[in-house]
Amino acid sequence: MREHEYLQSLHFNCIRLPDGAGVVNMSLPIVLAIGDREKEEIGASPDVALQGPDGAVLAILRRVEIYPHNKEERIARTWGTTAPGLPYVDEAIAQAGNWLIGGDLEVIEPIKYNDGLDHYRLSPQQLRNEFDKRGADAVFAFQLRNPVHNGHALLMNDTRRRLLEMGFKNPILLLHPLGGFTKADDVPLPVRMEQHSKVLEDGVLDPETTIVSIFPSPMHYAGPTEVQWHAKARINAGANFYIVGRDPAGMGHPTEKRDLYNPDHGKKVLSMAPGLEKLNILPFKVAAYDTVAKQMAFFDPSRSKDFLFISGTKMRAFAKSGENPPDGFMCPGGWKVLVDYYNSLQTEEAAVATV
Amino acid sequence: MREHEYLQSLHFNCIRLPDGAGVVNMSLPIVLAIGDREKEEIGASPDVALQGPDGAVLAILRRVEIYPHNKEERIARTWGTTAPGLPYVDEAIAQAGNWLIGGDLEVIEPIKYNDGLDHYRLSPQQLRNEFDKRGADAVFAFQLRNPVHNGHALLMNDTRRRLLEMGFKNPILLLHPLGGFTKADDVPLPVRMEQHSKVLEDGVLDPETTIVSIFPSPMHYAGPTEVQWHAKARINAGANFYIVGRDPAGMGHPTEKRDLYNPDHGKKVLSMAPGLEKLNILPFKVAAYDTVAKQMAFFDPSRSKDFLFISGTKMRAFAKSGENPPDGFMCPGGWKVLVDYYNSLQTEEAAVATV
Repeated sequence: MREHEYLQSLHFNCIRLPDGAGVVNMSLPIVLAIGDREKEEIGASPDVALQGPDGAVLAILRRVEIYPHNKEERIARTWGTTAPGLPYVDEAIAQAGNWLIGGDLEVIEPIKYNDGLDHYRLSPQQLRNEFDKRGADAVFAFQLRNPVHNGHALLMNDTRRRLLEMGFKNPILLLHPLGGFTKADDVPLPVRMEQHSKVLEDGVLDPETTIVSIFPSPMHYAGPTEVQWHAKARINAGANFYIVGRDPAGMGHPTEKRDLYNPDHGKKVLSMAPGLEKLNILPFKVAAYDTVAKQMAFFDPSRSKDFLFISGTKMRAFAKSGENPPDGFMCPGGWKVLVDYYNSLQTEEAAVATV
Repeated sequence: MREHEYLQSLHFNCIRLPDGAGVVNMSLPIVLAIGDREKEEIGASPDVALQGPDGAVLAILRRVEIYPHNKEERIARTWGTTAPGLPYVDEAIAQAGNWLIGGDLEVIEPIKYNDGLDHYRLSPQQLRNEFDKRGADAVFAFQLRNPVHNGHALLMNDTRRRLLEMGFKNPILLLHPLGGFTKADDVPLPVRMEQHSKVLEDGVLDPETTIVSIFPSPMHYAGPTEVQWHAKARINAGANFYIVGRDPAGMGHPTEKRDLYNPDHGKKVLSMAPGLEKLNILPFKVAAYDTVAKQMAFFDPSRSKDFLFISGTKMRAFAKSGENPPDGFMCPGGWKVLVDYYNSLQTEEAAVATV
């Protein structure tokens, strides 16, 4: 981003299009930080090559513009707090350079990660083509960064049912796991992708009406600000329905004993966001384990004591201890992937402890 | 403000109008904080009376809505920092209640301050009527919270000249000093109003083409976020040209040795703000004391050593010491008002010291 885009993103969560053609939503700035030394090396050069870790030139930034990286302001306006301990701030902002460089990006070739998952990394255009090929007349997107349990599946399958009821003939699900940075206690991408494959293999989700693709963004955990980006990016990729739940992209406050964001604000802010007026938001119904029906079901407040909420923390505890979660929480194939992952972690931890 | 307005103000600096009629700019939330006890007292009452300091009912808030006052988030998103020492935060937010109350405001009678300055407090509608009465075909607004020196006057008179050149026949200046909270070292409103009167009496500004009115807003010192409010409020009052300078509504960072905002961001953000697309922004030329011409003049970088910048701090130092500023800095009548004010302060300080 150039500075005028960066400022609009920070202040307005949207960017004006030229010639009064309205605005596009853009709640997170997409910027590249550089240090004093890089700034000096660039000097007055108009164009800058962007290299991958192996030195190959991947893109050229044309007619560059270098401007101050006002980190405190960027953090405060993006997260609504400057408390220490925000995962993405620690990962990508705190140590970054004091300048931002923007320009016209000329991509030479699509980025490859060479991690065996590149076939899942479809560009927005590739996704649109895929939806066309499948003859989708509605696309509903589900953002996730966790293993899929049967509660998620219930929600996605129920959404499809509702879209069919609304008259759509062929609604397609875009299952779009986040593939960039996540915090240390989230399950790593390769494990999640394997788990998602099992969920499709086991028929919990229908492979005929589901497209799995990796959303390459890093997780910001920026709540109401980030959920706009999550929705906007999926609209760009052809989705017209977006499923949003309680406290999307939220987390606990890093230094206080409370949620960082009001859990209702994500949905409210998304529903009012500039540039997203045409978005169809599907409110997330809460699913929990119904101990009577012995399956994941939509929570029924009239018999709340029958329901068990299985948090990520609880799920990790089950997997680590080798204990099985209640029947019907997750398909056995998917659960095994997680158990194996947590076992490998414990083996690693044990190895570290004995070294 | 209700919560949906508050959230849009914080996240987008603008609020959607009903029925797709676009957005209005609203960069600062206008909210009323209440404490736990008041919230309990209100209970389920739909309507709440708002009383003045003397107990008189001034307005009724109808169909009220009470929602959490997330102070940290409000501060971070408004100021781009949560550093301690932001004047308006200390004055009005830190000690305020943990709830906000919004609703439909029914004003019973216009608020009177009974400080001898109420005749200066014109509503936006009254100002529009006044501009009509004077036959204005252009109104240019000047936001200020400081005494008017000849540099300001040069700028305002030069703006009028430019508007005449552009073909307007009767441009009127709205001199609109801020009348709410200001930080302790700013000159108090009654002194400033007296100073402004002298500036008009002495003919530094032309009373025929100037309307002086008090802008009742408190000063937030929130830089690029606040300047939008300053401009929007004047547009509401009938202005179509807004003069904006370097670092509008800015201040030093409360805990670091630097400006809180990039001094260019105010103008940039204002020029891109949603809901202000039709605003005519007049960039502020910098005026300084020209030691050769012995008057305030637009700064000429080719002979920068001839110019003297007289900051507010320097002006206060002159007034306190009884030393006169250079000839032509301020009209003598206006300067005397300031000298008298600073003398009275010193007398007060001396009295406090001897008690």
